[in-house]
Amino acid sequence: MEEREISQAVIRRLPRYYRYLGELLANDVERISSNDLSKRMHVTASQIRQDLNNFGGFGQQGYGYNVKYLHTEIGKILGLDVNHNFIIIGAGNLGQALANYAAFENSGFILKGIFDVNPRLEGVTIRGVPIRMMEELKEFIAENNIEIAVLTIPKTKAIEVAEMLSDTGIKGIWNFAHTDLHLPENIIVENVHLAESLMRLSYEVGRYDEEHKDI
Amino acid sequence: MEEREISQAVIRRLPRYYRYLGELLANDVERISSNDLSKRMHVTASQIRQDLNNFGGFGQQGYGYNVKYLHTEIGKILGLDVNHNFIIIGAGNLGQALANYAAFENSGFILKGIFDVNPRLEGVTIRGVPIRMMEELKEFIAENNIEIAVLTIPKTKAIEVAEMLSDTGIKGIWNFAHTDLHLPENIIVENVHLAESLMRLSYEVGRYDEEHKDI
Repeated sequence: MEEREISQAVIRRLPRYYRYLGELLANDVERISSNDLSKRMHVTASQIRQDLNNFGGFGQQGYGYNVKYLHTEIGKILGLDVNHNFIIIGAGNLGQALANYAAFENSGFILKGIFDVNPRLEGVTIRGVPIRMMEELKEFIAENNIEIAVLTIPKTKAIEVAEMLSDTGIKGIWNFAHTDLHLPENIIVENVHLAESLMRLSYEVGRYDEEHKDI
Repeated sequence: MEEREISQAVIRRLPRYYRYLGELLANDVERISSNDLSKRMHVTASQIRQDLNNFGGFGQQGYGYNVKYLHTEIGKILGLDVNHNFIIIGAGNLGQALANYAAFENSGFILKGIFDVNPRLEGVTIRGVPIRMMEELKEFIAENNIEIAVLTIPKTKAIEVAEMLSDTGIKGIWNFAHTDLHLPENIIVENVHLAESLMRLSYEVGRYDEEHKDI
């Protein structure tokens, strides 16, 4: 595939295209027009054509997009054509919820280890993966080719643990702690700040009420 | 406060300002300059001034921002000055993790009920809130002034449940199911698509590798 610079806005939309194309594939749909995809995804056909034209030549006039090809190519861009070993640090409710979410594996994210500081959790397994103590963390990362660490620990601990990770070869941190981590640029951080998402919902609800209140 | 049209981009950044201002407040900081805030938040001072100027007259030359006032005003915009009753639908790992997250209450989000279809969970309590069966859902929403429903159920069920919610008076849905919900415009949906967040991390890690590989 031709290399092009793709805008951040398009990149942020790619996982959604990937999901819809995956669902079409699962339903044995071989090709789809931008108009049909537009109806399913509730975005304009012109937006879809603009976004997907970034990858050059996927769509053919009168034929539409080849679902499998497009799914595969977008998957490659997102790095889903190879496996990524990950660990979860923090075996509380959220950590266990993520450990139990088997669907990540379908996208190549392989859970290799779970870590916690609570000795009572040592050896407890989730989907066959035992919970280990933090003392083993560095060695485990080095020996198991771990790329991604998921942080599901309180924010007071997250900064400390992130620093501990900074020279381990970890490439990405999926951060659920409600704090910003500032790490060397070779470690990518993706934040999931749930409280902030809830605030945005609250804002939108309030704005709708405001615009529709009886005068 | 003067009413102005604030851009979506600024709105999306407000929860982060709210968080930093809250931390300053907790540390008894009374005022802060855009430069100091800039260093803490790792965004430019000019960005901060532009964003906060939307609210008119918070900052004073040579004095800086009044932390408490700004925190309160941003809180009002986000709807955090009033309580919002919410329920969680789906008492699996993720639902239980969210139910256990007491910090939401500090922002006025009050957990009133938890619902599930599994009869073995009926009556089990999480932070004093009992798990109820779905048959009680509609009546419970009506009687308890519920504004927000959190969906932590599989995607195949989410569409059905969202439809069930559409005429209940629910104003917002915080959707963790990995599917898009299409609801009447009076119900605001905020999606948390975790798998897509993980894919963006994977993309960024891959891009970094690509840009820094040895030739």
